[in-house]
Amino acid sequence: MAERSSSSHPRIDTAAVSDALLGKWKTERLESRKLAADPRLHTVPGQSMDDHRERALEQLSILVEAGAIQRAFPTAVGGSDNHGGNIAAFQELVLADPSLQIKSGVQWGLFGAAILHLGTAKHHEQWLPDVINLQTPGAFAMTEIGHGSDVASIGTTATYDATTEEFEIHTPFAGAWKDYLGNAALHGRAAVVFAQLITRGVNHGVHAFYVPIRTPDGEMLPGVGSEDDGVKGGLNGIDNGRLHFTHVRVPRENLLNRYGDVAPDGTYSSEIESPGRRFFTMIGTLVQGRVSLDGSAVRAMQAALGIAIRYGSERRQFPGASGRETVLLDYGLHQRRLIPRLAQTYAMQFADERLLTVFDEVFSGAKDTDENREDLETLAAAFKPLSTWAALDTLQEAREACGGAGFIAKNRIVGLRADLDIYVTFEGDNNVLLQLVGKRLLSDYAAQFKNADRATLTRAAVNQIGDRVSRFGLRRVGQSIADFGQIARSIESMRSPEAQRELLADRVQTMVGDIALALRDATKGIPKEDGRARAVASENAFNAQQYKLIEAARAHGELLQWEAFTDALEKIADAGSRQVLTWLRDLFGLGIIERNAAWYLTAGRISPHRAESVTAYVDRLISRLRPHALDLVEPFGLTPELLRAEIATGIEAERQQEAHDYVEAQRAAGTWPVHEKELRKQRQAAERESRQAKAS
Amino acid sequence: MAERSSSSHPRIDTAAVSDALLGKWKTERLESRKLAADPRLHTVPGQSMDDHRERALEQLSILVEAGAIQRAFPTAVGGSDNHGGNIAAFQELVLADPSLQIKSGVQWGLFGAAILHLGTAKHHEQWLPDVINLQTPGAFAMTEIGHGSDVASIGTTATYDATTEEFEIHTPFAGAWKDYLGNAALHGRAAVVFAQLITRGVNHGVHAFYVPIRTPDGEMLPGVGSEDDGVKGGLNGIDNGRLHFTHVRVPRENLLNRYGDVAPDGTYSSEIESPGRRFFTMIGTLVQGRVSLDGSAVRAMQAALGIAIRYGSERRQFPGASGRETVLLDYGLHQRRLIPRLAQTYAMQFADERLLTVFDEVFSGAKDTDENREDLETLAAAFKPLSTWAALDTLQEAREACGGAGFIAKNRIVGLRADLDIYVTFEGDNNVLLQLVGKRLLSDYAAQFKNADRATLTRAAVNQIGDRVSRFGLRRVGQSIADFGQIARSIESMRSPEAQRELLADRVQTMVGDIALALRDATKGIPKEDGRARAVASENAFNAQQYKLIEAARAHGELLQWEAFTDALEKIADAGSRQVLTWLRDLFGLGIIERNAAWYLTAGRISPHRAESVTAYVDRLISRLRPHALDLVEPFGLTPELLRAEIATGIEAERQQEAHDYVEAQRAAGTWPVHEKELRKQRQAAERESRQAKAS
Repeated sequence: MAERSSSSHPRIDTAAVSDALLGKWKTERLESRKLAADPRLHTVPGQSMDDHRERALEQLSILVEAGAIQRAFPTAVGGSDNHGGNIAAFQELVLADPSLQIKSGVQWGLFGAAILHLGTAKHHEQWLPDVINLQTPGAFAMTEIGHGSDVASIGTTATYDATTEEFEIHTPFAGAWKDYLGNAALHGRAAVVFAQLITRGVNHGVHAFYVPIRTPDGEMLPGVGSEDDGVKGGLNGIDNGRLHFTHVRVPRENLLNRYGDVAPDGTYSSEIESPGRRFFTMIGTLVQGRVSLDGSAVRAMQAALGIAIRYGSERRQFPGASGRETVLLDYGLHQRRLIPRLAQTYAMQFADERLLTVFDEVFSGAKDTDENREDLETLAAAFKPLSTWAALDTLQEAREACGGAGFIAKNRIVGLRADLDIYVTFEGDNNVLLQLVGKRLLSDYAAQFKNADRATLTRAAVNQIGDRVSRFGLRRVGQSIADFGQIARSIESMRSPEAQRELLADRVQTMVGDIALALRDATKGIPKEDGRARAVASENAFNAQQYKLIEAARAHGELLQWEAFTDALEKIADAGSRQVLTWLRDLFGLGIIERNAAWYLTAGRISPHRAESVTAYVDRLISRLRPHALDLVEPFGLTPELLRAEIATGIEAERQQEAHDYVEAQRAAGTWPVHEKELRKQRQAAERESRQAKAS
Repeated sequence: MAERSSSSHPRIDTAAVSDALLGKWKTERLESRKLAADPRLHTVPGQSMDDHRERALEQLSILVEAGAIQRAFPTAVGGSDNHGGNIAAFQELVLADPSLQIKSGVQWGLFGAAILHLGTAKHHEQWLPDVINLQTPGAFAMTEIGHGSDVASIGTTATYDATTEEFEIHTPFAGAWKDYLGNAALHGRAAVVFAQLITRGVNHGVHAFYVPIRTPDGEMLPGVGSEDDGVKGGLNGIDNGRLHFTHVRVPRENLLNRYGDVAPDGTYSSEIESPGRRFFTMIGTLVQGRVSLDGSAVRAMQAALGIAIRYGSERRQFPGASGRETVLLDYGLHQRRLIPRLAQTYAMQFADERLLTVFDEVFSGAKDTDENREDLETLAAAFKPLSTWAALDTLQEAREACGGAGFIAKNRIVGLRADLDIYVTFEGDNNVLLQLVGKRLLSDYAAQFKNADRATLTRAAVNQIGDRVSRFGLRRVGQSIADFGQIARSIESMRSPEAQRELLADRVQTMVGDIALALRDATKGIPKEDGRARAVASENAFNAQQYKLIEAARAHGELLQWEAFTDALEKIADAGSRQVLTWLRDLFGLGIIERNAAWYLTAGRISPHRAESVTAYVDRLISRLRPHALDLVEPFGLTPELLRAEIATGIEAERQQEAHDYVEAQRAAGTWPVHEKELRKQRQAAERESRQAKAS
């Protein structure tokens, strides 16, 4: 650091901030970064799809040898029951190669985890060792061509035959073919297949089955067919493909029977009586995919900003008043493009740490309560969409901020963007996930007014009196606000965290209240007996609110991220770091308010004058943070081996220096040609002088 | 069509709308579409970079044979002097393969066009025939590693040596190496090199030189070096690379001397006295790249929406109240995602037609006035950024709207998105272009108040009294609005085009006025003599306004697009088409206002109530347009050969039908298993009944 931190010129302590970002699973993250720095695990730009697929498979073996993927598995099969650490380490792999990362996610986070969480001890013993050591590469066969988000409606059936004690796995039409499955086109030897379990003429809903699909030589087993999805927009190291099953028989024991079982005679049994709850419990065990993607997306954002901010700090363009060309990051627009995204990256990293913590509490069993599980699902459904979209947005802005250089593969950004594209729709389509959050907010809202009459509800929509709300559910606003604008008036300044929190929380609460009211009105006047008409009316009303509900869910997610950032701030002891990060947190919070100023103005929450002052303050924060931009990417720990972007190696500064030295040397030697413009100015000045001389 | 158009149920006449979209150069567009349908010109997903590069080169020969690229050249060298038609045809090629398109743009639109526009008759005779017939593939060597947007500051020099009557082309440091040049890595045999022309110790600024770089066998010529840019984020069919020159000598005659020449003795001469104006005149001849990209981006948007709307009309997910699963495009959110982008696509297509028209007027010489040239540059600088960004946004939304299927290369979207990524920063970085527009708006604004004092200027910033404004320059608002909100009050309804226009124009005018005022205050109090301090203060003030200025430029571009749409509407005779397109235009206009509601509210131009009614009306327009979505993509003329996206072939509807038929057949045969949920409901109902029976 050129300058030490002081109260008038605070600087961050990069080591302290680095620790804050690394969080609870620092050891696992650092181990994984070390691995991700290994050239054997790196992307080779331009590699053919076939070669990349082989390379990714080999890379998985390297992970096995390094002991990098065993953490989440039980100690009995060589793991360490370390759920949070497993995901934290996984997230770091995105900077090795997203194909390798996601292929390992398919193998151990989906295929292996399904056996672990949906199967029972005998399954673990029988299959997990070979899953872990990669003897059995496998596919996670849930999604079908015809059903992605709506898993409950998949078409594949598993019909029990008591005479042979077998299930018959069958995909009766093209829409029921399993699709987009990693390991399906080439490497998979088995698959966990999700199918409607039918026994004794009754469909007990979706269950998972272990189904061998290929011989060790790679031949398809009888009745199993595979199609290659071919080239994709990214992640071409993964052999995604389709699987279809024509009356394929597996033993009764291949049902992963933790939540539902079939006796030899075909009797179905389950500890969970409600088929709906049973389905959601099974699906809920698969939340780790979303958790994994959240932090991976944030890691990619860090890389994008690491590249763009380094380059933007060295690159110069257009002559400035200083006499030299202006550094890109000294342009107001360039700052507006990159610095708020830096604030967002910090917020999302802290939010991911919170998500990981809840995930670990649930999966380690430390706090495996229904409420915590529900919170985990809501948090994952809120954060994964926001971070994966933010990653694409940040990568793209970084790409553009680096101009043509950003488009060259050796500068890393375009490859990451292409690979991360699919993160926004897999493991839960982002919009569907946010809708889930929105529905949770609506039910939290309704729970507050369980027996309330219409008048109370209406009043509440204005007054926002909170009641029971769970830890990550709907936030209540601290004070009642009977009049529009009171929040804005009742707070000293928007700079205080209390004020930011109130504005952010109020928006969520009010939006949800408005939507609830609109939905409640939908079936008004339609007789109770006319179920169909009421269903249609409800559907239409919901559809009319769907866009707003998703906006509310997004607002809720941002509030939670803001809270995570604020909580993290409190744990930072170093004064300089705390000061700079407070500006960054304020930028994140006020940035959200600025972006949604129309809502705040329309709802009467802020005055037009206040809206302008938010923008002015955002501008001030950005220029205040500008000198800290490089310091703030430092704690991301983006070593050259991890970043591998030529333009972020200092090469641009060298080139600028070389050009500058060349010109200076020419000037010193008197060989620098005068510019015609200069001559012209001199001539014009001389003419003016001679005219003046004549006139006087 | 299932239903005929009537005044109560209007339908569009797809042929009439198709003609409106095809515009003035319908013949050329249709010829080019026919060519783009030729499989020899199509992208092969997953092809290696080397193979793709060879293929693209071969494809250029096919274009030559087809007579597809000669239109813009003079009749003397086999062309037809058809400038508008040339660009229109070029734009259509994007659906063959963007690599082929841009490589042809490099060869004929940049390399060839530079010889045409910057050279003189002898150059045309000497070089153009071989450029046209592809005997001389060439590079357009303007951009350097160190200078992209700021062409005036490039480092390459061309120093005249009167003793040998040669120019010495030299790249004195790495930053001066030419970079990102198509045809540089492999195929180029010559280059048009931009360099600082130095003769007799004076630098006369940037000029262009014809420089051979490779032998016919592909060997580099002495002193010329080449580096391969390698794999890129897209457009991998183009051999982009670097060129550097070490004291390479070319004859004096190789200076493209239309705007500046050097006599054998080294005397420099130019018809344009001012070096600044000369530079901008030379650079201005290269505007066609931007014009070309504008319509290409719109064409890609059409393809994206063609795919996503077709798929969204067939794909079903989640059971609906209708008893069947709901079609995606019946979801409120899905409509919000796609239909406003359809409106934008129409607006941008009509805007591109206007841009092409001005381009043709200038380049054909029909209306080659200074004012028209200036307007052309402003229009191109406004439209190219908006359309290329919109293309990336629309392709991405379409990708996500198609879920996993959107990520598979055979469904086309991801390839187009990867290729078009660079369109937003090449041929003028989008932000730099918008800044150019912003500066034009500021000077138009200043021109209105040439001798005004400060009080007048301040009043004007509020009153917005327009004065001289050129055709595509700053719009003036029709009536003065002394009070906030008067616009919103003075208009009958926002649905009228007059009201929309006023709101859109007022925003531009007011923003520009505010910025002008802020800039004018910047040097207040700094003495006139202190030039440096004033320069720094001006720079800082500009920097503080840069973000807003670019917003204003964007707003201006959108206004011009809105006007183009509105003008196009007037030419549509068919009543049904006019009605539906009017809704679409309204959606475009009100969509802009909705997106910028915060500004309108803060500036007091609309009331909170009005802001809510804009959103409500946007919602109504979207659902009104929903039934026309397929009709509205029909006029894009996206034949299967052009679209080549499996999911847009009707395959999804077939799969839905197959699944539906299967279930219906099972139900009919009585073999459809009852669901446990159903049994549970029946049991619960039975229990309730038995309890009630007992109780009574």
